[in-house]
Amino acid sequence: MDPQTVAHAEFIFQLAVLLAAASLGGLLVNRLGYPSALGELIVGILLSPYALGVVEYSDTLLIFAELGAILLLFYTGLEADFNQLMKNFNISILMGTLGAILPFILGYLSMVYMGYQDGQALLVGTVLTATSLGITVRMLSDIGRLHTPEGNVVLGAGVIDDVVAVIILSVVLGVFTGSFNIYNATSILVKAIVFWVLTLVIGMKILTLFFDRYFKNVENLTLILIALCFVGSLSAARVGLSSIIGAFAVGLSLSRIRRIGYVRERMDAINLVFVPIFFVSIGMLIDIRIFGDFLIPGVIISIVAVLGKILGCAGAMVFVRWPKNQAFRIGVSMVPRGEMGFAIASLGLASGYMDGGVYGIAVMSVAISTVVAVPLMKILYAERVAPLEGH
Amino acid sequence: MDPQTVAHAEFIFQLAVLLAAASLGGLLVNRLGYPSALGELIVGILLSPYALGVVEYSDTLLIFAELGAILLLFYTGLEADFNQLMKNFNISILMGTLGAILPFILGYLSMVYMGYQDGQALLVGTVLTATSLGITVRMLSDIGRLHTPEGNVVLGAGVIDDVVAVIILSVVLGVFTGSFNIYNATSILVKAIVFWVLTLVIGMKILTLFFDRYFKNVENLTLILIALCFVGSLSAARVGLSSIIGAFAVGLSLSRIRRIGYVRERMDAINLVFVPIFFVSIGMLIDIRIFGDFLIPGVIISIVAVLGKILGCAGAMVFVRWPKNQAFRIGVSMVPRGEMGFAIASLGLASGYMDGGVYGIAVMSVAISTVVAVPLMKILYAERVAPLEGH
Repeated sequence: MDPQTVAHAEFIFQLAVLLAAASLGGLLVNRLGYPSALGELIVGILLSPYALGVVEYSDTLLIFAELGAILLLFYTGLEADFNQLMKNFNISILMGTLGAILPFILGYLSMVYMGYQDGQALLVGTVLTATSLGITVRMLSDIGRLHTPEGNVVLGAGVIDDVVAVIILSVVLGVFTGSFNIYNATSILVKAIVFWVLTLVIGMKILTLFFDRYFKNVENLTLILIALCFVGSLSAARVGLSSIIGAFAVGLSLSRIRRIGYVRERMDAINLVFVPIFFVSIGMLIDIRIFGDFLIPGVIISIVAVLGKILGCAGAMVFVRWPKNQAFRIGVSMVPRGEMGFAIASLGLASGYMDGGVYGIAVMSVAISTVVAVPLMKILYAERVAPLEGH
Repeated sequence: MDPQTVAHAEFIFQLAVLLAAASLGGLLVNRLGYPSALGELIVGILLSPYALGVVEYSDTLLIFAELGAILLLFYTGLEADFNQLMKNFNISILMGTLGAILPFILGYLSMVYMGYQDGQALLVGTVLTATSLGITVRMLSDIGRLHTPEGNVVLGAGVIDDVVAVIILSVVLGVFTGSFNIYNATSILVKAIVFWVLTLVIGMKILTLFFDRYFKNVENLTLILIALCFVGSLSAARVGLSSIIGAFAVGLSLSRIRRIGYVRERMDAINLVFVPIFFVSIGMLIDIRIFGDFLIPGVIISIVAVLGKILGCAGAMVFVRWPKNQAFRIGVSMVPRGEMGFAIASLGLASGYMDGGVYGIAVMSVAISTVVAVPLMKILYAERVAPLEGH
């Protein structure tokens, strides 16, 4: 065998290990009554180079993970109800904004209070801003609560949260590099709005008619829609949004295609392979060894991450007079952080703006908030929830 | 964006282009009445670095293609009828053996006749041996003829063909390196038999009962079966067989799991993404520019590749008294060469055993035999075949 074939064989073997572990992990946590995604996260933590070292990072693995996140949000967009999202749009703006800003401010203040420098504190605050819509959506879907009023508000708020988090990040980086100006922050907002309006108009008004007319074969339709999803997520990344938000936008814009139900069935199956890789790879980013070294500040910032998000989101919902128990559930649903938190922390470390200890605190808060939120969601949404069985 | 993110973005963009092109190419050839796979091959030829240069090779692309071939044959195994295969087993052995040896001998003699050296002639003969079971299966499936008596015999013969081709390759390489001995050739045969028996026994006797009992959730079942498919194909590659044959063996051994129908539905959707990448990537291996330089010997060897396979396979079928039209259809179904032909030619070129001109002839014969066989199959199986529409 030539070296290339060996490299492929190694990756395919790792993929086999990951899928088997995800399957068994999912089976186990399902039996205990928890969503599969939690099992996959734990599998990732255990198999990572930091722990058992069974699976290694490779470009291909990271691409699979990224495709998993993109395809998950694309599917979510295809399933989402545009009218419902628009109905709750004002609430989503309020909640998404407050839920991103409050953890930022509280995170910053707590770090300063514990004696860290201003710059480090700002970065940790930024890490705490963005909810991982990917994790939140998967959890809600795993426990069968995505298509509820709460789920709907969370989806809309997740979209706003992403824009606000990106703006905060650009402002903080602007402060570090001395290039901050109000123009940059505004331009992100403008680009985000243009991206969303263009995607929705093109998708709903032009492409939907086109595909209804010319793509009668479901297989061909599915392939071209996946291609569009990728183009949309790359475009979103170009204008500074998350790639997964782009995929959600494209999915939403195409959700009214006549044969979309058949496409969704196929996407659901395709996601079986890619989505667990995303969750396992998020788990793999968590280095449990560093938890001991920064236990106290790490736990404090984790608590801030959880409470800040809940207070911001639930507060917004109570403000618009939603029942308190629903508001609280929504707040908890927004707690999971993920890829964006890790990405900002890595960026901070790589650029030298963040030292190793602060990086550890940041990663810990992202990890803990996610791992805590998941069973909490399960409990809060508990009525009438049984482990998903068969089909 | 950091360089890694850019690399991912480039791959995801190429994937989008490939899937969109495969979708449109499939739509077009379907409308003309040809199977989608032909459209995908042509898309690959056109987009390759040798032609338009829109898509480049990358490790991840090659892995996607390999997974496509593996998952396609896994699905085929899940669908196959073990009893039918066993019923036709003797015929399959005869046809698989004759159909691999005849093109080898005729290819060798034609090259020698045209004045090429013995060694080069041997390698070209070897390139002509192996049918691409992946391409054959996809074509038969696209035209709705996989589950016919012909399709069944072709499946069995494809398995045997693989073993014979690997043995011929090892003998030829043994001659080149001076390490040939009868022990090596025999050991391949023994390993192949052990692999098959072990896989079938473990799968049918142990794993089927285990999964029926403990994996009631279809999602978890699908994931673990895919993992097993990968392990099986890697093991097959370890003992010297094709990885795709390993995947077929695993699929066959698990085809009697009670809930396998649900798994097949999901595999069918998953293959939507991976399988076209396999076909496009096969097309990408074809450098049409070299065709002009070696036109005459290339065309002669291509004719030998097509006729040798048809004569060997159809001859075997006529020998066991199958009707001539069925025998001929079967012979034509076995004509497509593919990944193994390209791999042997590349190996020959890289090791210096084959010069550039002979490499061109070899690649040309693989490409032409496949591109010729596909419409021919379509015509021969023509009765009652309509383009696949909707679902």
